[in-house]
Amino acid sequence: MEGYEEKLKFLEQLVEEKRFTELKNYLMNMMPADIAEFIDEMSPSEALIVYRLLPKSEAVDVFPLIDMERQKEITSLISEDELKSIIDELYFDDMIDLVGEVPANIVKKILKNSTQKQRTLINQFLKYPEDSAGSLMTIEFVDLHKKMTAQEAMKRIRETGLDKETIYTCYIMAEHRELEGILSLKNLVLAKEDETIENIMTDDYISVNTHDDQEYIAEIFKKYDLLSLPVVDNERRLVGIITIDDIVDVIEEETTEDFQLMAAIAPSDDEYMTMSAFMLAKKRIVWLVILMFSATISQLITDQHSFLTAQFTVLVGVMPMLMSTGGNAGAQSSTLVIRGLTLGDIKFGDLFKVIWKEVRVGIIIGITLGFLNFLRIMLFSRNVKLAIIVGLTLIGTTTMAALMGGILPIVAKKVKLDPAIMASPLITTITDATTLLIFFTIAAWIFLGA
Amino acid sequence: MEGYEEKLKFLEQLVEEKRFTELKNYLMNMMPADIAEFIDEMSPSEALIVYRLLPKSEAVDVFPLIDMERQKEITSLISEDELKSIIDELYFDDMIDLVGEVPANIVKKILKNSTQKQRTLINQFLKYPEDSAGSLMTIEFVDLHKKMTAQEAMKRIRETGLDKETIYTCYIMAEHRELEGILSLKNLVLAKEDETIENIMTDDYISVNTHDDQEYIAEIFKKYDLLSLPVVDNERRLVGIITIDDIVDVIEEETTEDFQLMAAIAPSDDEYMTMSAFMLAKKRIVWLVILMFSATISQLITDQHSFLTAQFTVLVGVMPMLMSTGGNAGAQSSTLVIRGLTLGDIKFGDLFKVIWKEVRVGIIIGITLGFLNFLRIMLFSRNVKLAIIVGLTLIGTTTMAALMGGILPIVAKKVKLDPAIMASPLITTITDATTLLIFFTIAAWIFLGA
Repeated sequence: MEGYEEKLKFLEQLVEEKRFTELKNYLMNMMPADIAEFIDEMSPSEALIVYRLLPKSEAVDVFPLIDMERQKEITSLISEDELKSIIDELYFDDMIDLVGEVPANIVKKILKNSTQKQRTLINQFLKYPEDSAGSLMTIEFVDLHKKMTAQEAMKRIRETGLDKETIYTCYIMAEHRELEGILSLKNLVLAKEDETIENIMTDDYISVNTHDDQEYIAEIFKKYDLLSLPVVDNERRLVGIITIDDIVDVIEEETTEDFQLMAAIAPSDDEYMTMSAFMLAKKRIVWLVILMFSATISQLITDQHSFLTAQFTVLVGVMPMLMSTGGNAGAQSSTLVIRGLTLGDIKFGDLFKVIWKEVRVGIIIGITLGFLNFLRIMLFSRNVKLAIIVGLTLIGTTTMAALMGGILPIVAKKVKLDPAIMASPLITTITDATTLLIFFTIAAWIFLGA
Repeated sequence: MEGYEEKLKFLEQLVEEKRFTELKNYLMNMMPADIAEFIDEMSPSEALIVYRLLPKSEAVDVFPLIDMERQKEITSLISEDELKSIIDELYFDDMIDLVGEVPANIVKKILKNSTQKQRTLINQFLKYPEDSAGSLMTIEFVDLHKKMTAQEAMKRIRETGLDKETIYTCYIMAEHRELEGILSLKNLVLAKEDETIENIMTDDYISVNTHDDQEYIAEIFKKYDLLSLPVVDNERRLVGIITIDDIVDVIEEETTEDFQLMAAIAPSDDEYMTMSAFMLAKKRIVWLVILMFSATISQLITDQHSFLTAQFTVLVGVMPMLMSTGGNAGAQSSTLVIRGLTLGDIKFGDLFKVIWKEVRVGIIIGITLGFLNFLRIMLFSRNVKLAIIVGLTLIGTTTMAALMGGILPIVAKKVKLDPAIMASPLITTITDATTLLIFFTIAAWIFLGA
């Protein structure tokens, strides 16, 4: 993708100078994903011009790769005939994504141009919950019968394969569409021509239900290295398939959600650049308010020890450093454990192993940091008492923070909360309060002997 | 995966009670990935027993799915004959992964059992940098000539396809192995039997170089929805292919690295549960020390204002809340921007748009939080001056924090640093200092009129 930005600029120049024949020739040699990216970058009206320059066969490959926002804009600008030709050619899952997003008047246009059977199917698909298998699957798969021979199966694939999203896994269905087995195209190609499908298919396959969650489905794809996965209803009838390209998007989506939760932001699928400042503020403010009011505990603890801080103002100076170090140590632990839980490396049964590990890590880190700070304070201010207080506080605070960061995500998962909320912001608020408590207790003891 | 833990426990019981015939029957009906997970959970000696119960054809599917640590243990426990049979059957990329990890004496055994040609190839592959295309690729792909007919190509696939990692994309090579085009099995199957490959292949394909970075390669897979990707050397000779299953692992690996960096942990591929407390402490301590000493700036600022805090101790109480709120707001911004940069949603050219957005978000959040805190303080302590100071500080501090969180990751990326380091820990350290500065300045102004 070297020189990529330059290429985009050059194409934009062609649009501006209305050199459309030249532009068309360039587009003919570009990959659909690159054309889609180019269309995403332009103004809606320019985007439409470029889109209309594409030959029909190319346009249909490009359309589902365009940003959903831009897809919506294009559908609102084009004629009903153009809309019909897009809808006819889209894979069913891409079409459903579009129908679920466009305004009611466009939906009406789409439904008007479809058959009764299609309408029923569209309505059924729109009802699947947003993050479910049903909302991810498509209906364009190769179906075979177990009594066919390999040769017959290949003939069927040749006749119908062009419109299928994948032909690399074929699905063998009984009457009433019950799924009986699957067969990879690899095994079909390698089989003898007169072998019956029954003998080469496998009934040892994995399937999911229409209502299974996309995160669970992504786990299955990763664990079993799948390219596609059949989706069945409660009667084990095959209703669709999910393909790996959509799962890669799911993985990214779920990761983004984790990042957002871990920064105390209400999760959202929308892209940062397309969200308004007001929308962004709304996503961020709820947790900030909760955390701010929770921090009142730290205020109470500090206020209760004002007799100490008034007398020994030097204590106030080290408060920020102690709190941030405790917070950082806790955030490290919780991040490692949250990620371990996501990847399946850490399970609930590992709780005590994690506790024991974090206690040791906390003590090792605490002693190191405590000692370094002891040296620093002795060197710069020669205040032995302060050096001892800070050193001891650091040992206590990092151990406690590591423990909290280790335990809380595991407990959260056990009570069916997303462990990702037990990340830096919440952990920091908790460690702030406990750090101050440890700090003032040790300070009172060393300074006042009480 | 319901009832999955119970199933594992039952299998473990079979091992303990040495009911091996029963166990073998169970294993026969399990998926390779499930058997590998089962083997991962046991002690090394039990793992070996279970591994040896597997029929040869099954064992070869299971082996590369076992944890690398466990793979190493097994290779050190089995006989040379058993080792040879594993090595012979593994795909080249899995074999190279193993050779790169096992101790020298095992490597010697492996090399002893391989041909001169294999040895040369192994040595060549071991030289590719760890995160490069070369280290991800495998050599088992289908190669065709452009003068073949579709029928001849299918015949070649039937003869050689069994040992290939994928047959769904075929590679057309000229003399000296230059890559001339690719052909999907779909298009081959759908083509007429006497069509020549030249007419149905496409030369409009994407390839990468052996030294390209895995993060870049993952981007390409995502953007173009690929199942596999050819890897060429500097002379455009085809040296290997990369398949989507390995890319899914790369995506997870890169995400884990981002999470670690964003929590100020030195990145590591090792799993949390397998790392010792000492190793974990080592990965975590460097950044903690850097951040701790950076927090000295906050200490200096606070110490310089001890004349204020000694006189108005109520100021000390609100410090923790102000710092944590500023830190949280900054962490939210930086997380959103870091993720946007990773997903390609935000580019360097968007810097000023991001600044403008974050300023507005910061002000909206600041006014809301400031007002809520003003009310809280008026309600509980009726200290108007403190309420004003805290309210104004919150507006200043969230705006500044949002700005820092927005700008620093983009700037970091521009100067070729990983934007992920500009996350919560570093941002918090910076916002702590600026928050205190804003706070004391406003406090001095309101309390002392200076």
